[in-house]
Amino acid sequence: MPDQPAAPGEPTVPTEVAPPRETTGDLRNVRQLARLLSIIEDGDPRLRSVMKELAPLTGTARVIGLTGPPGAGKSTLTGALTSAFRARGERVGVLAVDPTSPFSGGALLGDRVRMQQHATDPDVFIRSMASRGHLGGLAGATPQAIRALDAAGFGVILVETVGVGQAEVEVAAMADTTVVLVVPGMGDSVQAAKAGLLEVGDVFVVNKADRPDTRQTVRDLRNMLALATSDGWKPPVETTIAVSGEGLDELMGQLDRHWTWLNDSGERERRRLVRAREEILALASGTAAARLAAAPALTELAARVAAADLGPFEAAEELLAFLD
Amino acid sequence: MPDQPAAPGEPTVPTEVAPPRETTGDLRNVRQLARLLSIIEDGDPRLRSVMKELAPLTGTARVIGLTGPPGAGKSTLTGALTSAFRARGERVGVLAVDPTSPFSGGALLGDRVRMQQHATDPDVFIRSMASRGHLGGLAGATPQAIRALDAAGFGVILVETVGVGQAEVEVAAMADTTVVLVVPGMGDSVQAAKAGLLEVGDVFVVNKADRPDTRQTVRDLRNMLALATSDGWKPPVETTIAVSGEGLDELMGQLDRHWTWLNDSGERERRRLVRAREEILALASGTAAARLAAAPALTELAARVAAADLGPFEAAEELLAFLD
Repeated sequence: MPDQPAAPGEPTVPTEVAPPRETTGDLRNVRQLARLLSIIEDGDPRLRSVMKELAPLTGTARVIGLTGPPGAGKSTLTGALTSAFRARGERVGVLAVDPTSPFSGGALLGDRVRMQQHATDPDVFIRSMASRGHLGGLAGATPQAIRALDAAGFGVILVETVGVGQAEVEVAAMADTTVVLVVPGMGDSVQAAKAGLLEVGDVFVVNKADRPDTRQTVRDLRNMLALATSDGWKPPVETTIAVSGEGLDELMGQLDRHWTWLNDSGERERRRLVRAREEILALASGTAAARLAAAPALTELAARVAAADLGPFEAAEELLAFLD
Repeated sequence: MPDQPAAPGEPTVPTEVAPPRETTGDLRNVRQLARLLSIIEDGDPRLRSVMKELAPLTGTARVIGLTGPPGAGKSTLTGALTSAFRARGERVGVLAVDPTSPFSGGALLGDRVRMQQHATDPDVFIRSMASRGHLGGLAGATPQAIRALDAAGFGVILVETVGVGQAEVEVAAMADTTVVLVVPGMGDSVQAAKAGLLEVGDVFVVNKADRPDTRQTVRDLRNMLALATSDGWKPPVETTIAVSGEGLDELMGQLDRHWTWLNDSGERERRRLVRAREEILALASGTAAARLAAAPALTELAARVAAADLGPFEAAEELLAFLD
């Protein structure tokens, strides 16, 4: 099944996109690109050579992460931002990372519906992602998927994740700019704080701002953010109604302001290093974990721990000896 | 801050609980036990010797995992099951594992309120858990916390987790019996399937069964479960209204039926082995990941990957060489 309806006519492609290559194929072709994303998700053995081929083509995309609790309107806002960047002539790649779903291999029904206005636009590529077989999990797969879209010439890449667990929050924070969404209402800003979202946000959005308690939620967020230490950037709090587009111009303005700051301050380079570091660590740790799980000694060690004959730490140490 | 209000008078303790020990102290003392749980959560250096001391005291507790989407009523049902087991004279330990919260170190406000009826009962111990500093994360910390409560003489241990991510689902599945909760309504059973909950459930509960669509949700679940392969146990689907206690006797009956089956079939022993295996793997993988993150070469490798001078897989491989 193709990941997107076939585009009518050839996609518009910037000239810097490379010609077809041995492994990756022609990234201007939406089906080839979808296949590449599947290779990444599955942790396919070809991944290694693919990533090597892609590397020189990357480094220009602007990556924006969107995260927040379920129901905050992330997908709707992603759709609205896609339209706004398209109106500027940007090609937009969208990665929807849903850790609660093992389904992937293309956009889910919900995403298709929400993003329908972009379904026939060859300059928008939408993909729901899992990390089924990927050794490094989401932390390894997401930077690779970003690199693939970057190499395919998407100038803006939106990475949407549900902010439910530490891993997802970390994936969102791999972006150049991280947008944290909440909805008005008692406790939502507190929930965001609990989930560790305050630390990762560059721009905060109180969405569904036609609801009561909007002002209170904005105030709560600003108060909590005022307590955080700042590295030179003070995260603004914007209000939007994503379904009607209200507040979107102001949000785009804040995103641009952050982008300028990132480039001027050297922070963009620093974040790129962090992303590379996390990716390498995820891949190496994933490989180490897989080797440990395959060690024949594990079965006997587990039996001894279950029989209270050996402590779990001693067992782990014995197992680690098998890595050498 | 103590984890529970001080119990009035000495707790009732079964005779098989050991006397005070060097590191673990007197586990009959609720404050000592709370301190032990903090050691586990924090990945305190004393953990290793503590676990060694505890091992011989463990192996008798019956561990029941409860999982399901947010809002399914897990905490209310946990409270109801606590009462039901207490009525049989069992001592009950409760571990509430919330991966979306970095807060821990004792019961959260919400848990306190819901479990208030048990707050002064010395034979009930309630603890909200995170895995702040723990090398093996939740997969490493949870079996250790279970072992601590087991050693402290709690015959029944309820492990409540939010079923939002793969890690949490796996933690729930470490129990002897795993209960999966859903609420009636369009799509909730589908969501459960998406989250991988169908595979881990031994007993399914449609809670809030006074809501419309209860029958349809039960039917959906049964249909989906009928498609799954069975290892000799066919997971039943029960309906409850946890707040009023309706359906609780039937649920307790199913839990007992599963417990009997576990012991008769040898599956209990198999699950104990799986739990030990996962615990060892989590600890060993966590240690390996920590060593990799501390390798001085990582900074330079990240810089080369960020500069597209090296592929991420080549970098991971170079990093892994530092484990030897």
